[in-house]
This record gives sequence, structure tokens and C-alpha cells, in this order.
Amino acid sequence: MEEINASVDFDKRLAHEDLAGSKAHARMLAACGIISEADGTAIVRGLEEIEAEIAAGHFEFKRSLEDVHLNIENRLAEKIGPVAGRLHTARSRNDQVATDFRLWVRGACDRATAGLKVLQQVLLELAAAHADTIMPGFTHMQPAQPVTFGHHCLAYVEMFARDRDRFVHCARRLNECPLGAAALAGTPYPIDRTMTATALGFDGPARNSLDAVAARDFALDYLAAAAIAATHLSRLGEEIVIWTTPGFGFLRLSDAFSTGSSIMPQKRNPDAAELVRAKSGRILGSFVGLATVIKGLALAYAKDLQEDKEAVFSAADALELCLAAMAGMLSDVTVVPEQMRKAAEAGFPTATDLADWCVRELSIPFREAHHIAGAIVKRAEEMGVALAELPLSQMQAVEARIDARIYDVLTLEASVTARRSFGGSAPEQVRNQIAYWRGKLS
Amino acid sequence: MEEINASVDFDKRLAHEDLAGSKAHARMLAACGIISEADGTAIVRGLEEIEAEIAAGHFEFKRSLEDVHLNIENRLAEKIGPVAGRLHTARSRNDQVATDFRLWVRGACDRATAGLKVLQQVLLELAAAHADTIMPGFTHMQPAQPVTFGHHCLAYVEMFARDRDRFVHCARRLNECPLGAAALAGTPYPIDRTMTATALGFDGPARNSLDAVAARDFALDYLAAAAIAATHLSRLGEEIVIWTTPGFGFLRLSDAFSTGSSIMPQKRNPDAAELVRAKSGRILGSFVGLATVIKGLALAYAKDLQEDKEAVFSAADALELCLAAMAGMLSDVTVVPEQMRKAAEAGFPTATDLADWCVRELSIPFREAHHIAGAIVKRAEEMGVALAELPLSQMQAVEARIDARIYDVLTLEASVTARRSFGGSAPEQVRNQIAYWRGKLS
Amino acid sequence: MEEINASVDFDKRLAHEDLAGSKAHARMLAACGIISEADGTAIVRGLEEIEAEIAAGHFEFKRSLEDVHLNIENRLAEKIGPVAGRLHTARSRNDQVATDFRLWVRGACDRATAGLKVLQQVLLELAAAHADTIMPGFTHMQPAQPVTFGHHCLAYVEMFARDRDRFVHCARRLNECPLGAAALAGTPYPIDRTMTATALGFDGPARNSLDAVAARDFALDYLAAAAIAATHLSRLGEEIVIWTTPGFGFLRLSDAFSTGSSIMPQKRNPDAAELVRAKSGRILGSFVGLATVIKGLALAYAKDLQEDKEAVFSAADALELCLAAMAGMLSDVTVVPEQMRKAAEAGFPTATDLADWCVRELSIPFREAHHIAGAIVKRAEEMGVALAELPLSQMQAVEARIDARIYDVLTLEASVTARRSFGGSAPEQVRNQIAYWRGKLS
Amino acid sequence: MEEINASVDFDKRLAHEDLAGSKAHARMLAACGIISEADGTAIVRGLEEIEAEIAAGHFEFKRSLEDVHLNIENRLAEKIGPVAGRLHTARSRNDQVATDFRLWVRGACDRATAGLKVLQQVLLELAAAHADTIMPGFTHMQPAQPVTFGHHCLAYVEMFARDRDRFVHCARRLNECPLGAAALAGTPYPIDRTMTATALGFDGPARNSLDAVAARDFALDYLAAAAIAATHLSRLGEEIVIWTTPGFGFLRLSDAFSTGSSIMPQKRNPDAAELVRAKSGRILGSFVGLATVIKGLALAYAKDLQEDKEAVFSAADALELCLAAMAGMLSDVTVVPEQMRKAAEAGFPTATDLADWCVRELSIPFREAHHIAGAIVKRAEEMGVALAELPLSQMQAVEARIDARIYDVLTLEASVTARRSFGGSAPEQVRNQIAYWRGKLS
Repeated sequence: MEEINASVDFDKRLAHEDLAGSKAHARMLAACGIISEADGTAIVRGLEEIEAEIAAGHFEFKRSLEDVHLNIENRLAEKIGPVAGRLHTARSRNDQVATDFRLWVRGACDRATAGLKVLQQVLLELAAAHADTIMPGFTHMQPAQPVTFGHHCLAYVEMFARDRDRFVHCARRLNECPLGAAALAGTPYPIDRTMTATALGFDGPARNSLDAVAARDFALDYLAAAAIAATHLSRLGEEIVIWTTPGFGFLRLSDAFSTGSSIMPQKRNPDAAELVRAKSGRILGSFVGLATVIKGLALAYAKDLQEDKEAVFSAADALELCLAAMAGMLSDVTVVPEQMRKAAEAGFPTATDLADWCVRELSIPFREAHHIAGAIVKRAEEMGVALAELPLSQMQAVEARIDARIYDVLTLEASVTARRSFGGSAPEQVRNQIAYWRGKLS
Repeated sequence: MEEINASVDFDKRLAHEDLAGSKAHARMLAACGIISEADGTAIVRGLEEIEAEIAAGHFEFKRSLEDVHLNIENRLAEKIGPVAGRLHTARSRNDQVATDFRLWVRGACDRATAGLKVLQQVLLELAAAHADTIMPGFTHMQPAQPVTFGHHCLAYVEMFARDRDRFVHCARRLNECPLGAAALAGTPYPIDRTMTATALGFDGPARNSLDAVAARDFALDYLAAAAIAATHLSRLGEEIVIWTTPGFGFLRLSDAFSTGSSIMPQKRNPDAAELVRAKSGRILGSFVGLATVIKGLALAYAKDLQEDKEAVFSAADALELCLAAMAGMLSDVTVVPEQMRKAAEAGFPTATDLADWCVRELSIPFREAHHIAGAIVKRAEEMGVALAELPLSQMQAVEARIDARIYDVLTLEASVTARRSFGGSAPEQVRNQIAYWRGKLS
Repeated sequence: MEEINASVDFDKRLAHEDLAGSKAHARMLAACGIISEADGTAIVRGLEEIEAEIAAGHFEFKRSLEDVHLNIENRLAEKIGPVAGRLHTARSRNDQVATDFRLWVRGACDRATAGLKVLQQVLLELAAAHADTIMPGFTHMQPAQPVTFGHHCLAYVEMFARDRDRFVHCARRLNECPLGAAALAGTPYPIDRTMTATALGFDGPARNSLDAVAARDFALDYLAAAAIAATHLSRLGEEIVIWTTPGFGFLRLSDAFSTGSSIMPQKRNPDAAELVRAKSGRILGSFVGLATVIKGLALAYAKDLQEDKEAVFSAADALELCLAAMAGMLSDVTVVPEQMRKAAEAGFPTATDLADWCVRELSIPFREAHHIAGAIVKRAEEMGVALAELPLSQMQAVEARIDARIYDVLTLEASVTARRSFGGSAPEQVRNQIAYWRGKLS
Repeated sequence: MEEINASVDFDKRLAHEDLAGSKAHARMLAACGIISEADGTAIVRGLEEIEAEIAAGHFEFKRSLEDVHLNIENRLAEKIGPVAGRLHTARSRNDQVATDFRLWVRGACDRATAGLKVLQQVLLELAAAHADTIMPGFTHMQPAQPVTFGHHCLAYVEMFARDRDRFVHCARRLNECPLGAAALAGTPYPIDRTMTATALGFDGPARNSLDAVAARDFALDYLAAAAIAATHLSRLGEEIVIWTTPGFGFLRLSDAFSTGSSIMPQKRNPDAAELVRAKSGRILGSFVGLATVIKGLALAYAKDLQEDKEAVFSAADALELCLAAMAGMLSDVTVVPEQMRKAAEAGFPTATDLADWCVRELSIPFREAHHIAGAIVKRAEEMGVALAELPLSQMQAVEARIDARIYDVLTLEASVTARRSFGGSAPEQVRNQIAYWRGKLS
């Protein structure tokens, strides 16, 4: 029973938040005259000493004392005697733990937001360095049209921006303070909930005491944001794994972010990218786990909710590790433009440009222009040449009105540069977006 | 292969959005001089006729035409001839489907927000009618302290408010228009992406063409919001199931929202509440399903993404049904205050009040006061009386300083009313919150 | 990078299996003449000393040595010098870790099977003690027909029997030894894979070297079995939570398996039951996490697979804890037959018996008999009496052919006893099943 | 309410099973003298007519009649009059639906098993044709050691064999008949449960009536088996997607199983492989959905369980489609051995063979031999030659004892052929395994 019930092994990670909450509560109790100023001061001083002990690594958390809260209370009583008992006035374990955990999740949101920003900055620098580096744009993992590596990097800058937005809103949505909800019904003491809420950086007190102690949607919110960010990280991880294979060879990882083989010196296993790709599973699993716990749970507090913390801790650790690993990996990566270009030339990636030219210059309906382009590509394929190398006569045999201006659109550079529509692959567009994001991220 | 590839059976639900997107695109092409005004007008007119056919139920979607887009294009060609082919200029299936689906999800967010609001209003009316109706507040499903049914209803009003907020932010975050991203790299046509974006109610065009066609985090965002809202709905569903058992008897469902038994006329099975409770599984499963699809998917478009729609449709249908069923059920429910009161009297629910009184009036530290209250409750238990009925002498035998004022806090009413802290159970607090929400929801 | 890569913090739990695998491998290498007898003996002796050090708690696992395998190899080299290097002949980390982990999961299956059996035995004793204790049988959580508590306990005995079967088959299905698959392609050394397989209790060597190192479906298999068992445990947990509320009061938990309240001495929070109910989330989350990791993973080994162990460890710990907690809780539970009986009397639980009597004795079609019973129940309800107390004239007013024999079927006892169909609620049937399970579980 | 309650839209898929169950029940009732022979015959005849109507597509399922069962009962009454009402004697909707659904899931297990077998056979033929076709064996998606394509195919044969085993055991474990459990408590009629069980192909009647109507672990069992099989299918799908990129080019899909592009004739998008990869998400989501529904559900029947069917139907449809698509795709695939060989030559894939030779021939400890091999590979890399082309003097400069026999192990063929350990890459081993599986699958 102790084993299933004790939580100090993991909830000790709330110690900092628990102390902050207790200090704010003690100060408020004294300010409202619910405890004496002297008692308030003694309690706060005791809590600060405990904080120092924990920071110094001298605090011993005991499993026999069940959870982090009892460990701290017990130590406080050792330090300041029975007055310690006054700290729990107008408070219950239920609102206390809900407050601690909200504070922790808010901090985790901030760390995620910061980590995402660093990663965006790394990607932005890569984009700036490679705004003109041509690589294949893929659909179905098949080369489709040329783009630039800078353009590709910016796609992830966009994704991580939305991820940041999710964490920002999660942190805002949770920012109501449960303290003062007590066990579930509020308290008859004349407390000032706004004072504690403000002291702890909340926007204000939670408006319903039952909800305050029973709600864990803020934790689900964090886990959902983390799970979605993890799908983005895993997409990037997958691309790194594929792009570092000899068949692609677009990227080379540094020694620090790959593992070698003692006998194959050229081998660089993209372990870190694989682990980033994999961690998305764990984070998704945490969301599922906690959603399943909360599903169908009658109000208000139930012991089931004790399962909230490990789910979030595990996901937050994984996410923060992935963000740091990915930022480190990409800071250090070697881009291989020749391999990218070679791959971009595979197929007839400017066939769409040919069709578009027919629409634009010859006023042929799009669907028909596509058939013309298809027929011309077929001739190039049979002759074993690139589209830019196909004699004009061959093209005119398919559509007589094609003229020499067609060659202006058939090179990779022409194709990339032509896509000047907002957000398109043209280096000038890429540079516009880089400028936009530099402004946003500075 | 047709079977695994065809999607029209489900993506026909995008027909409305597809037509809106195509009309906006055609108008922009004409405005930018990419197609002639006459062609633009013909296309828009054709699309409007198709819209009318669908609205009238006369449009036949054919599986042989694979998806909703080809079905509509084909019909357009039947109506207006080869000019129909010009519609696909400067557009690709990839940006088209991404646009359609964003529009659909935006609509689903709006429906969810509206449905949640209706449910909040129903709960608010219940709260207003029962701001003074005493019921037990539960922890661990055991009666702990008295609250009011109005207070309990407001806890759900809070939860559903946060759920609304999630859908609102989801709708905002997704509100960038993919149209013009074309296959993945943008387009060489001089299109005006802002014009189409504005016409479709987007805040502007998506800033990166690769991201625009590859991203589905907006769908995950919707599913996460739905999954979290579903946990709240399922908590309420569970409470209705339990509260309608004879052992509780707090609520009685109307015939419309329960199923009877042909031989046990008193039996009212809470089928709708059970189904609401259950649907949370399906919605969570949809999130898991789509997150797993997207995990590790290289950019840009891949056929895997075709799995996005059924996941969202199924979850949205379930959520909207649950919201309507729950609002209907609660509009029609009979509250049984006597049963609530009876349950609230079980145990010694004002024991905390007794302890709090000792702290407040006798300046006894909280932890010690709790021991006193425990000893007094034990005496009451042995004598088989409620706390409010226990002779003063019995209390004084435990703690001599207790005096007759103690009886002021030992009734259920006193307990409920005393908790005047912000958000607490006191009817005046409940009424304050009702006023707050009435303002918000009107 | 060390942080994302190091695994010794969790994979040290494989130390026992790793040592067993290494000993078997060393003995085989010597027996096949691949290493000398002397080297083989030295290696085995060294490994046994390490085993003793670990058992005694003297072995220090170092994070700088990355994983459990390198920690052990390093220590072996400290003990026996360069000869330690021969142990890794004809083996790779890939087949080694796959072997270790299969052994661990096999052990976890055995522990789960044993834990389920103990729980079945506890339930069987409860069933034996309460084969005649009448309680309501519920549908939709509403009392429907009377059953006995013994009968209800046996329902869980059945579920846990199927759960055991799942673990048994999981253990059998995984029982092929990867050792000798080496990195992925097998080895040119003349090894005897059957010898190592047999020494480690496997049915034989795995038949394909790529599959041997890449497969983790055995871990998914374990997690699926655990997740399904967890749904059964959570159903039982939910019932205990509900049945210990004052509204039901069917069960009373012992102090050891509930937590009290310092001020409400009668309060027994069913914490352990709640945690058992909750842990199902974590286990399901582990399955989701690992399935997501493995989904879409190209062969053979990838670093992603390092995520397999924590998922399984976390789920196994949770499952084993739940099984022990549930067995302990039920060994110690107090059953309250009077409360069960009272609840069974709620409603008109023998109405079905009345209908059945009409079918049987009066040859009325079932659907019609149900209408008759419904009409009679309505009269009883109006008069406020139980069916067994309703005057015969009242019944005859509905259906003239009903006679006094009807009273034989209207009591709870009569209803329960009448259901003599195989597996039905009749105490004789319950006792038959108890005898069956006693035979099976002894 | 009708909308949330009606299930006929999906449960009509149980019509066949429902009719089979009803016929068996009617025959048993007549055989036991509970209904007359004449009534039994009339009922069975009526049911057979309905069966024919459904088979002919003439049966109209009405939503107003809620579910498949009521639709059939209603039609039976239209056909044979009030006698139809006798069919429901000694039966309830609860045991009826549990029986129907078990029958359906049993059939789904059989279909999955058969589909997996067909896929295994396709893979076996590919393996037979390519037992000698050298390709790179990958770890971390990097080429590591050469294997053969036949060997790689056999890895999947193994996985799908375990998947079949899961479905086989699922079908066996569920094979107990709920019929006769009635609403939850059994029935007072003298029914013969063994007779109906046998008629429906069950091993016998379920032993506990409460469990019989409340259990759905058989559905979870199916979904878990499907989810695990789906991870294997998705791994194969991922490999096909990667192997058909120009960077790899190992495989070429037929037109039937890829989609082209109207303008890039060489483009073959691996749509079917992508969809197979993606469907694993949906199936995993179904498992999560149903597990979440069942978690914490009190016995016996609850309306929540109505969610069981769509989860299973959706997963079964997806699985069966994937199996057929994968078998079709691979039946038709073109293998490109030159591309496989080219990739196998990348890196120094026989470096391990060099090290192994040193261990074997020079008795150098494995760890040391690996360092020697590493140093030699480094020289080859600097000289830009393959290992088999490196002059002996270069190798001897690293380790003087190496002699000309070393060249026997440095070619791809030598490397592959040398791995003769059971289950290794040697073509003779591959052929042994093909023979083994031919025996098993014939």
C-alpha cells in the first residue's frame, strides 16, 4: 500500500513550486490577520531555509513521509516547532497540489517555448545560409519540383512557431490560482485569494473551488501541445535519418551528434535523430495515459489524479531533450549541396514549368497543357536527356507554337526562381521570410 | 487499389468548402488577368450551379472519380466545357485539399464553440435554480463537505469555458490560407494570395508553401481540443450515471433522454449519459490515430495524409452529438434536493468547520485543531448523533474552551454559507459567479 | 548527446538477464571451440562474480559507460583482463540486447500470470463465502435482477483467466532466441545457436537474423496483454470505489487499504482502488507509445528501439503493483450483505420472473408476457408495495389466468435460485463454478 | 436522442451473425420443449427468408427501428405473426448482441489469418526468387553488412507468422458462447446452452452469465493483434516508400499499385504503400478508443459498450485492405538487383568479416580485432578503394600476420555466404528457411 500510495519519488520535483506556494500563503495569512505577523515571518523564514537545503542538495526526501508536501511540512516543524501547523490554515492538500502543479506546468510551457525559439533560430541561420541551395522538393518522398534548402528549413520554422503558440496559450489558460479552494468548497477564513494569486504570477484566483481542485485539463493541454510539437520534431528527425543515408547524402552529422562504428570509420549512425523521432511515441503515450485517467472521473478530487505528474514529467523531459538535441544537431550539421542538386535533377522536375509556360504564353487550358508537357517529357526520357537539353524541334513536334523562350523556364534555377508567389520557393521570397522571422525571433 | 485509394465516400463532406475555395480562386485568377473575365464568370457560375445541385441532393458522387475534387471538376467540365480546365491554373490538388480541410476544421471549431456555449447556458440555468440546493461535495467519491448543486454546475461551466477557448485558438491558429502553395513550391503565375485568403475568411496566406501543403497540426489541434472537452463531458456523464442510481437518486432523467424497460416501469437507463461518457474513447482514439500517421512523415505531401479527414469527421460528429445530447438531457432533468440533502448529511460533513472554528476562535494551530475535531466526531459517532446534535459537554470534554457558539457552524447551511472565499460554496459566491457568466455568455 | 543516448539508468534492470545471456554465450563459444576452455571458464567465473556484486548492491553503474552491457563488459575486463574481449566474439550488441529484453519480458509474463492467479484465488474465496449473498445485478448501473456476490466475484475470475492466457501465449510466442543473429546477418563462426537457446530456456533459436534484432512485437504483445488486464482491474477498482460510497455501502475497506481523514473518522477513502483504476491509463499509454515508435520503422535495428524498455518497465511495475494491491484489498475487505440486499430490493427486480412465469405456465408469447408484467409492476408501484406483496386480485385484474403459484417466483431468493441455466446466478451453479476453478487454480 | 442511440447504420453488419444466433436459439428452444416444434420451425423458416432477402439486397434497414436486432424481429413478426415473439424466450438483447459480436470477431480473426497467409506466400515467392540477390543490410538506415533480398523478405514472413498466431489465439480465447446468459443472471428456462454453443461453432457456453454480457476483452484482443500486425505492415510500407525513391531505386511498383503524374511519366507515387503505412494509426486509435471506453466500466452491461462495434469494424476493414493491398503490390513489384548491389557496396560492408577473420585465424581477441579492421578500412578510405582491392602490404602494415587468405572474405558474396549460422544471411540458410515455410504454409 505504501508502494502504491507514496509519490515523493516523483513529486519531489514540485519542491520549488510547493515552497513558493507556501510562502505566498503564509504571507497572505499574516496580511489578512489570520495568523500573526510573527508566525508568518517564522514560517516564511523556515521555508526559505528549506529551500536553501534543497538547493544545496542537503534535503533528504523520505518515502515514509509519502509526498513532497509532508516532507516539507515535517522539516518545517523540526525547524520552527508547532507554529508550522498554522501554515495549513485555510488550505488543503487538494488546492495546494493543484497550485504546485500548475506552477510547474507553467514553467514547462516557458521552457518549451524557449527551446522551440532556439531551434527556430538555428533553422533560420541554416535557411539564410542556404536560401539559394537547390534541393528536390518531395511529394510521396519522390522528387517533384526543385526548391531550396532554405525554403525547406523555413517550413519547420513555421511549424515550431505554431507549437510555441500552443504552449503560450496553454500557459495563459492555466493561469488561474487554485489556492484558497481548500479541500473543494472554499474556506470560511477571510483570505485574500487575489493576493496569493498575484504573488505567484497568476492572473487571478480560479473562479470555482470544485473545478480548481478537480481540473487537470491544463496538464492535458500541455501534453497535447507537446505531442503535436513532437510530431514536428519526428518529421525532421525522419528527414535527417533519410538524408544522411548514402542514397541521399544531403547532410552529414558531426561526430558529437552521431555514433560511429569502431570498424567502419565512414559510418555515422544518426542516433540522436532516431531518438528524437522515437520520443514522439512516449509523449503521445503520456497524453493518452492521462486522458484515460481523467475520462469519466467524478468530481472533485480523486486519488486517480496522482497519476498526472509522472505523465507530464516524462513528456516534458523528453520534449526538452529533443529540442536541445535537435538544435545541437542542426547547429553542427554539414550540408552537401552537390548531393541535393544531383537529387533535384532526378526525374524531370521542371515539367510543371513547361506546362505552366504553355498556359501562360499560349493560352492553353491547364489540363491540356499538362498533356503536352507529359508528351514532351516522354520524348526527353526516350532520348535520355534533361528537358533543358531537348531540341526545340522535338518540343514543336508535340506543340508547334512552342518557341525558344521555353528554355528560359527549364533549368532548376529558373524553376525555383519563377515561383515568386508569396511563400514560394524563389530565393527572394525565402529571403523575405527570413527577414520576417528575424524580426519575430529577435 | 481503387478501394484503398478512393476517398469520395468521406471527402464529399468537403464539397461546400471545395466549391468556396474554387470560386475564390477563379475570381482571383480573373482579377489578376491570369484567365479572362469571361472564363472566370463561367467557372463561378458553373460552380454555383453545382452547389445548388448538391444542396438539392441531386449531385451524384461517383467512386470511379476517386475524390470530391475530381467529381466536381468533372461536373464542371460537363457544364461549361473545356474552360473548366482553366480553373486548375496556378493551383494543385495539394494546396486545394489543404485549404478545403482547413475551412472545414474552422467550421467545426465554430460549431464546437457554439455547442459548448449552449451547454454552458443550460448549466448556468440549473445553477441559478439551485444556488442554495445543498448536496455533498465529494472527494474520492466519498461525501466530504457540503456544497450546493449550483456550485457543482458552475464547475462544469468553467471547464467548458476553457474548452471553448481551445477551439477558439485552434480556429485562429489555423487561419492561414494554403491556396497558392500549389504542389509544394508556389507558382510562377502572378497570383494574389491575399485576395483568395481574404475571400475565404483567412487572416492571410500561409507563409511557406511546403508547410502549407504538409502541415496537419491544425487537425491535431482540433482533435486535442475535442479529446480534452470529451474528458469533461465524460466526467459529467459519469456523474449522471451514478447520480441516477437508486443509491444516490440525486437526478431523474426525462423519458426522452433515458430508455425504460418494458417490465420495470421505474427503470430509466441513462443511455445518453453512458454514450456521452463512452464517446470520449473514440475522440481520443482519433487523436492517437492521426498523430501516429503524421509522426515521422517526411515533407511535403504524402498520401498518408489522406487519413486526416475520417479521424476529424468521426471525432467532430461524436463531439457535436455529445454536446447536443448533454444540453438536451440537462435541460430536461429533474433535480431531487431531498436526496442530495440526505447524502450530504451522511458522515460528519461539518467536522472541518468545527476544526476551523477552533483555529479561528481559540487560536489553536490547524493540525492540532484537526485532532480535536477528530476526537469530537468519534464521540458523535459512538452516540449515533450528528455533530449539530452533540451536547456541548461532550465537546468540552475534548477541548474545554469550546463554547455554545460552536453550534453556529455545525449545520449544513452554516457550513455552506461560511465558505465565502472567492469561488467558494457560499450561495452569495455562487450567485456572483452566475452573474459573471451571464455577462460572459449573453 | 550523452543525455539522450545513455540508457544505463533504466537498462540496468536487464543486468541479471545480460549476465545469464553472456554466460550461456561464453559456454557455447568454448564448447564449439571458438574460444578456449580456459578462456570460457575465466569469463564465466568473472560474470558470476559480477552477478554476486550486483546482488550484494556493490556494483556501481556508471552513466559514462552508457548502458548496462558496457558497464558489465568493462567490469569483466577489470577482473579478467583482455580475455574479456573474447566474450563478444560472434555476438553483437543488437542480438545481445534483443535476447536480454526477451528474457526480461518472459519473466514479466510469468510474474503477471502468478499475480493474476493469486488475485483469482482471493476472488474465489470471496465467492465461496458469498455464494448465497444476494446483491443487485446491474445493467446501466441500475439494479436489474438479483444475483449473488459470489456470482459477481466469479465474473472477475473469468476475466483474469483470459488475462493469464494472454500472458502465457505472449511468453510462448516470444520464446525464440535472437542470440547468434549478431548485428543483423548472422555470423561466420561455427556457433551452436540451439545450445545457447536451450541454456536460456528458449524453445529454439529465432529463424531469421534480421527479424531477430529488429522485432519488438513481443514487447507490444506484453503491453497489450497488460493493457487489457488493466481494463479489468480498473472495472473492479471502479466498483470498489462506488460500492464503498455511503449510497451503496456494499463493501468496507480495511485501514491498510484505505486512507482516513484526521477529522472524519468514518471516512475511508478508497485510495488503492482509485490508483488501480487510474494505472490503466499509464499502461495503455505505454502500449501507444511503443506502437508509435515501431510504426513505420525500417529494418533492422534502429536507435528508436531503445525506447522499448522504459515503456515495458513502467507498465510492468504498474501492473504488478495493481495486482498485489487488489489482492491485498480484497483479502481484507468487509462485505455488507444487508446493504446489498437493500439495494437488490430497490425497483421491482423480480418483474422478469413474473413475465417468465406467464410464458412458461400460461404459454403467452414472451413479448406479450412482458407487457403483462409491466402492467402489474405499475400497480405495485402505485400501491407502494413489492411484487411479492401485491394481492393476487391486482395481478388477475391484468391477466385473469395468473394464480397463487406466482408468489413462488417473486422473492429475491426465488429469482436467484431459479436461474439454474449453466453459468447462471443460482447458488448451486455458483458452487459448481467455484469447484471448477478450485480445480483449475490448485 | 435517436441519433445518439440508433446503431443500425453500423450494426447491420451483424445481420448474418444475428440470424445464425437466432436460428440456433429457436432450434434449441424447440428441442428443449420450451416452444413447440411448430413454432420453432416457423421461426427458423422466417429467419431463413430474411437471410435470403438480405443476401438479395432487398432488406431495408430502418433507423426508426434502432438496431439490427429490432429490424430483424420486426420483419419476422411481419412474416410469421405473433409467434415471432416466442423467439425472445430465455434470451435478452444483452446475450444476443454479445453472441453476434463474438461470431463477427471470430470471422474477422479468420479473415486476418487468411490474409496474412496470402501475404506470407507472396513474400516467400519473392524470397525464393531472390535468395542470392545481394542488398545492404541496414542498421540505423545506414548500410551495415550485405544480406540478400530473400533474407530480408523472410524477416517479414516471420513477423506475419507471429501476427497470425495472435489472431488464432484471439479466436480461440473468445470461443465461449454468451447465449443463455440472458440479461445478466441466466434464465429459469430449462435451456441447453451446450446445444446452441455447439451449433454456432463455439467450444462451449461461457461459464459466468455476468461476464458473458459485460466482457469485451475479445474485441480488445482483436484490436491489439490488428494494431501489432499494422506496425509490421507499416514497417514494410515505409521500406517500399524509401526503396522506390531515386536515391535507393531497389524496387519499382507496377502501374496498378502506384499513381503517376500526368506530366512526369517516370514518377510513380507509392500511394498504396503510404496508405498501408498510415492505416496503422487508425487501427491503434481504435484500440485506444475501445480500451478507454471499457476502462473503469462497472459490470454488467452498459450502453457504453455500443461503441465496441465501430472500433472493430473500422480496424478490420483497414487491416483487410492493407493485407490485400500489400499482397497485390508485392506480387507485382519489380526488383532492381543492380541498385541493391550498388548500395551494398557503399561503405566498407565487409569490414566485420575482416575483423572476424583476425579473431578466427590469428586468435586475436574480438575487441582488438575490431581496432585492426578499423585501421585497415581507414587506409582503404584514404586510397579510395574497396577493401577487396586494398593491397596486402597495406593490411600487413596494420597487422603483420594477415596473409592473402584474407581476400577470401572481403567480397560481398563471401560475406553473405559466410554467415551460415542458423537463420543467417547465407543463401543456403535462406533456402532452408524457404523450405521450412513452404512446408508450413502449404
